Amino acid sequence: MSSPVLPLDPAGIQLDPRQGLARQLYQALRERILDGRLSSRLRLPASRDLAHALGVSRNTVVRAYDQLYAEGYIEGRTGDGTYVAARTTAAAVQSPLVASCALPSQLSQRLQAHHLSERPDGPPRAFRVGVPAFDLFPFATWARLQANFWRNPPLARLGYAEAAGDPQLRELIAAYLRNSRGLVCDPGQIIVTSGAQQAISLCAQLLVEVGDPVAVENPGYRAAGLAFAVAGARLQGIAVDRDGLDTAQLAALKGCRLAYVTPSHQYPTGITLSLARRLELLEWAEREQAWIVEDDYDGEYRYSGTPLAPLAALDRAGRVLYVGTFSKIAFPGLRLGYLVVPPPLAQAFARLRGVAVRHSESGTQAVMAEFIAAGHFQRHIRRMRRAARSRRDALLRGWPLDLAGCQAMPAVEAGLHVSVRVEGLARERELIARAAAVGVEINPLSDYWLADSSEAPERRAGLVLGFAGVDEVQIAQALRALRKAWAD
Amino acid sequence: MSSPVLPLDPAGIQLDPRQGLARQLYQALRERILDGRLSSRLRLPASRDLAHALGVSRNTVVRAYDQLYAEGYIEGRTGDGTYVAARTTAAAVQSPLVASCALPSQLSQRLQAHHLSERPDGPPRAFRVGVPAFDLFPFATWARLQANFWRNPPLARLGYAEAAGDPQLRELIAAYLRNSRGLVCDPGQIIVTSGAQQAISLCAQLLVEVGDPVAVENPGYRAAGLAFAVAGARLQGIAVDRDGLDTAQLAALKGCRLAYVTPSHQYPTGITLSLARRLELLEWAEREQAWIVEDDYDGEYRYSGTPLAPLAALDRAGRVLYVGTFSKIAFPGLRLGYLVVPPPLAQAFARLRGVAVRHSESGTQAVMAEFIAAGHFQRHIRRMRRAARSRRDALLRGWPLDLAGCQAMPAVEAGLHVSVRVEGLARERELIARAAAVGVEINPLSDYWLADSSEAPERRAGLVLGFAGVDEVQIAQALRALRKAWAD
Repeated sequence: MSSPVLPLDPAGIQLDPRQGLARQLYQALRERILDGRLSSRLRLPASRDLAHALGVSRNTVVRAYDQLYAEGYIEGRTGDGTYVAARTTAAAVQSPLVASCALPSQLSQRLQAHHLSERPDGPPRAFRVGVPAFDLFPFATWARLQANFWRNPPLARLGYAEAAGDPQLRELIAAYLRNSRGLVCDPGQIIVTSGAQQAISLCAQLLVEVGDPVAVENPGYRAAGLAFAVAGARLQGIAVDRDGLDTAQLAALKGCRLAYVTPSHQYPTGITLSLARRLELLEWAEREQAWIVEDDYDGEYRYSGTPLAPLAALDRAGRVLYVGTFSKIAFPGLRLGYLVVPPPLAQAFARLRGVAVRHSESGTQAVMAEFIAAGHFQRHIRRMRRAARSRRDALLRGWPLDLAGCQAMPAVEAGLHVSVRVEGLARERELIARAAAVGVEINPLSDYWLADSSEAPERRAGLVLGFAGVDEVQIAQALRALRKAWAD
Repeated sequence: MSSPVLPLDPAGIQLDPRQGLARQLYQALRERILDGRLSSRLRLPASRDLAHALGVSRNTVVRAYDQLYAEGYIEGRTGDGTYVAARTTAAAVQSPLVASCALPSQLSQRLQAHHLSERPDGPPRAFRVGVPAFDLFPFATWARLQANFWRNPPLARLGYAEAAGDPQLRELIAAYLRNSRGLVCDPGQIIVTSGAQQAISLCAQLLVEVGDPVAVENPGYRAAGLAFAVAGARLQGIAVDRDGLDTAQLAALKGCRLAYVTPSHQYPTGITLSLARRLELLEWAEREQAWIVEDDYDGEYRYSGTPLAPLAALDRAGRVLYVGTFSKIAFPGLRLGYLVVPPPLAQAFARLRGVAVRHSESGTQAVMAEFIAAGHFQRHIRRMRRAARSRRDALLRGWPLDLAGCQAMPAVEAGLHVSVRVEGLARERELIARAAAVGVEINPLSDYWLADSSEAPERRAGLVLGFAGVDEVQIAQALRALRKAWAD
């Protein structure tokens, strides 16, 4: 058999036979994709051809390709081989930043590798993740409160204000946390933020030095991981089992002084961190003098069972920083969230926020304070919980029971989304592509894993579905379309 | 003469007779104040006693004390000697952060030394700096636009949106800059920010590595210097003369790749950067491959003469990042500003902003876009310019002509504040203390200098007066109160 012409030079790829071959090959290919030696949309050699050229088994090449596939570096076209993905090259190679070396700073280099999507969400549709039922927000009330505030605003509130946030709003947040989440704190511990993202980003900036290991759930919430990575952290993925974050694996990490967790409803698996694990996590933080950033993601949405106390309410050593947001009760575009930090940290957080943005918009803070003080907020939480439960039921009712290659839909006791495991990445891609073809948005679970996960790529597959963003009629329509699209 | 007992051990202070003695003594005392060896409110030895103990001239001690005084490390009580200031120790020594070493990160240590005031402004009063005539803002119109938006908002605009800002708002900002400032740019170069502060802070984070020298005007805008210092810059003060920033001094700096400037109306001196200097500055940036952060502070307020083109409009090499804000036309609490960056930098800035805060509040951006599109904004700028000019006139009319130890009030051709030079720091403090006693707010010019300025302390003195924040009647009242308080 004559060797085919390969689009990459196999002689340049040196594999050490004493190490994992698939992993080395994955790294060699990834490097060439990132630096542009393997350019966007280039067709890769068939696995058997590359295996032959490198003198390794075909299985080694298939495993390396699978990993690249799972991470979006390459993509398959049915019946037409494997190609370098377009978007990877667009971000990492064709960018004018890299081309011109315009910004050689370390931070901008980290931003090349780690950033959020630059595209806006567009109108809500089934089954977008991270979107509450904001079609139910009482906009008429909000419009009235806005108009009331602006018609005759107190001028003293429109100058430069406290970096930590409007004092009245912070009082009301403290009262809400005490009554609803069992978290007793002083308003002086509260820093109003531009959503949960700024809360996490401030933690990343103040608690992490470049090169520090930071423990994150794996799979986990990417936007949080990004904030830590952009601050220079080395992300250390910790497995999530039926009880939540694997605290034994965390304890075995050397030199790690910060863990980011979503205990109420793990993102994306939907697991609730057990009480035993909560206590182990707190013990770890006290023993290691480490920080826990507790993102109380979806904490307001619980449909059955007793909600567990947040870590911040159990913390006696002052090691927990609690992240809350109004986005999941009101709407994401509001950009209003908060941090509750141990008292000795409050000043540093307020100062960093002051230097970064001064403070949040005065009117929005004042109107939200009035919205809470007048009882609209608590009423709306109850309405949103009922709506989310009803939309969850619509999803469970219409979900195909016998979907090939899919595990059963799990019980959904909390939160605004659910993860369904799928057997293999190819099946995951196929189901999602067919859903997209009929206008239904589903996120691949494989997207939520860190690039260097030890978990085998085929065990990372699944479908992540948000169920709260649209109403029951649209959910039923989307499910009918899916059943047709998925019928083999 | 027997030696008096001194509250500090002079034997611990080693002065090298080959170096500047006053400077060494200043540094030794400052170090002891910062690390708590000289504690808050401690009375310092009289200058003649310390001079005797150290074997130096009394003039050396007086000069060191003057410098510490100018920087707020020590304070005088009339007829009662000199004391370590209370606030220095509160920030640097008594803080629970330092006490518990709760946050040993480098960033938090920088925040100990560099931060904005944590106290809100309170209601506007004469002669607060940095406040426009926001009592004239058309709140009824704003309330109507807010209510219109919120009564039936497009849901697609309330999800997660573009980090760089609302596309319609960016189009309108680009059109405004083209028509009003002669700055032609593409909306894709615009990043909406949380006021000028976030714009400057993003520049500091993306363009500065820890330890980099950054050139700032001296005296200059402190909040900008803080943002660079918190990002790890070594601030290099550049003198400001009658033509603005001394570009020869800038060119002599080794290894400096970033300059922050306020060309329209230098803060705080009120100088406009001459055209010749603008061109020299741009040549410097092109030659050194350096960045210029142009803060178009007060750029909308010009009362006579032709406005000069912003640096960003003259820039052909893509080295200028332009900072604008709505705070000085609307009100500071709005927290809406923008950056215009060279095209190759736009993506990195949008990405950093996305990771830091996602984006600005959707409603505020949409309402501001409508406010501009409907013509209210341009109308309001004209109204604000007329008001600021009339308030300036009220200040010039009522200002005491024969104030001892003060230079004449300069011509005020632009901006919202004016600086009056005073002969000596003692006189500056005296005038400001007497003004404060009758409820009139005046900022000391000496506060705007970098700590290690080569300018002699007595040449840094002056009064900085904002004239736009309150109306003509209140200005006249404040001036009457001042004339009485200042009459000797």
